[in-house]
Amino acid sequence: MNVSECAAFLRAHDRYLLVTHRNPDGDTVASASALCSALRRAGKTAFLFPNGQIIAKLRPFAEPYFAPAGYEPACRVSVDVATEKMFADGFAGTVELCIDHHPSNSHFAPHELIDPERAASGEIVLALIRALCGSVTKEEADLLYIALSTDCGCFQYANTDAHALRTAAELLELGASNGPLNQLFFRRVSPARLKLEGLVYDSLRFYRGGEIVVALVTDAMLAEAGATEDDLDDLAGLPGRAEGHRVSILIRDYPGGASKVSVRSGPDFDSCALCAVFGGGGHKMAAGCNIPAPPAEAARLLLAEADRFFS
Amino acid sequence: MNVSECAAFLRAHDRYLLVTHRNPDGDTVASASALCSALRRAGKTAFLFPNGQIIAKLRPFAEPYFAPAGYEPACRVSVDVATEKMFADGFAGTVELCIDHHPSNSHFAPHELIDPERAASGEIVLALIRALCGSVTKEEADLLYIALSTDCGCFQYANTDAHALRTAAELLELGASNGPLNQLFFRRVSPARLKLEGLVYDSLRFYRGGEIVVALVTDAMLAEAGATEDDLDDLAGLPGRAEGHRVSILIRDYPGGASKVSVRSGPDFDSCALCAVFGGGGHKMAAGCNIPAPPAEAARLLLAEADRFFS
Repeated sequence: MNVSECAAFLRAHDRYLLVTHRNPDGDTVASASALCSALRRAGKTAFLFPNGQIIAKLRPFAEPYFAPAGYEPACRVSVDVATEKMFADGFAGTVELCIDHHPSNSHFAPHELIDPERAASGEIVLALIRALCGSVTKEEADLLYIALSTDCGCFQYANTDAHALRTAAELLELGASNGPLNQLFFRRVSPARLKLEGLVYDSLRFYRGGEIVVALVTDAMLAEAGATEDDLDDLAGLPGRAEGHRVSILIRDYPGGASKVSVRSGPDFDSCALCAVFGGGGHKMAAGCNIPAPPAEAARLLLAEADRFFS
Repeated sequence: MNVSECAAFLRAHDRYLLVTHRNPDGDTVASASALCSALRRAGKTAFLFPNGQIIAKLRPFAEPYFAPAGYEPACRVSVDVATEKMFADGFAGTVELCIDHHPSNSHFAPHELIDPERAASGEIVLALIRALCGSVTKEEADLLYIALSTDCGCFQYANTDAHALRTAAELLELGASNGPLNQLFFRRVSPARLKLEGLVYDSLRFYRGGEIVVALVTDAMLAEAGATEDDLDDLAGLPGRAEGHRVSILIRDYPGGASKVSVRSGPDFDSCALCAVFGGGGHKMAAGCNIPAPPAEAARLLLAEADRFFS
């Protein structure tokens, strides 16, 4: 379907349930919420699947649309879901309309609005809301700004193209509060997190002429920073900021003298193969494993194996 | 002058020297370099003042335009310079044309193209290049992307408006390589910089119930991190990552017991007015000043004045 055909589909049905994907990110949650708002403005009954995995920062934006217990939808619409494996339990085979931007979409739904050229599903939903309602509310603009900006790293990632930037400009003109939203999603972290980042940066050690960078996170560091589990999001990305490296490794100590290891690399190093030596796995550029040794010994073991996984 | 009057001025003169400001940032350096390129395409002799303070990441973009020793310009044009105090030595009273976006511009030049609505001088220079040449090269688009993106924190800062995002979209369509440029300017930093960030995060102190956060950068911290001037870009943004504050202040010690102060805030605090108390200036949400006292005393003086600039 094209956008206007999809809007006609939405006008012809009712009692919607908007479905998000597992490990929900800003694009799936905020795009689905914006579409839910627009469907209601178009006179429809519409709710969001109350995905329990939505992170704290996103939850306040989605909760107002959560379906009440016992809601019986007549038409399920997935937003930003590439394959049925990405559903929370129970939705495979039930979705009528799939709205998505992933090139890898597996075409699981009888009706679909898919544009693999777009950086975020939010861009597709903006066009759809315009076709459906002829207008976009400030709240929808905020939601779609969240969807777009989180999917392209606040316009820093390589998927940011002219269309994404122009869509962001339009959303600002529709009232999106980019300043506060950027603060919330990209900029502000707890003082404890800042302190912990400082300790992690202080722990960096470089090996193999700077090609391998190793960072440590110990319970003592967490205690010194006053950090809780909420402050540990994407710590594995921190050593990856160091110029010149090809492999970054974050090692966290676990009770009983064990280590949890995260490895990140470019395409010229096989992170997954290194982690597999220790019984772990993952992807070529992002993998993990557990090593039954304290961090310093785990680092030594990893460095002794790493050489042969460079290409 | 408006843009077309300014283009006419540039056509009517020759032997240009483009002048950047002290502690040159991406906007002054890259906007001036782009204008230099366009002036040459318009048949003019044009060079950039070889500002020795340009940081390593920016230097390769500016050096091809540096004036040779003995170059005698007939017309000096400043780009992104708000006041004559911001010049390197020797330019006060010599500039014919001032191109700038700072609302606090002191109107020091006989001719000026100033648009305080723009997030970066690069946006003004883009319009000027179009008026002057009718086209924009890929190299100029890269330079103007650097100017714009560095001045609005890769579209994360609150000064990012629809015009800035739309200009960025145009620059991508003109060939700007945003992916590699974003990696260079926003993601990868030196190990010394990471270490220094850690020390800055460790230095954070909170005042007024957490509303004001103060960070210090001392020579001892630079030495401990092994940091050079090249590692000091946008340090003022670091304390601004702390959740819950309304004003962030970075204080750097200067030789002879002096302090260089950078203030950042949301719209409910007048950073410029606070800095003006100490003879400085800038924008409402980003300003600076020099205080002839060591950092701890400078912090005390700033905190004593800060209360009355909350709105």
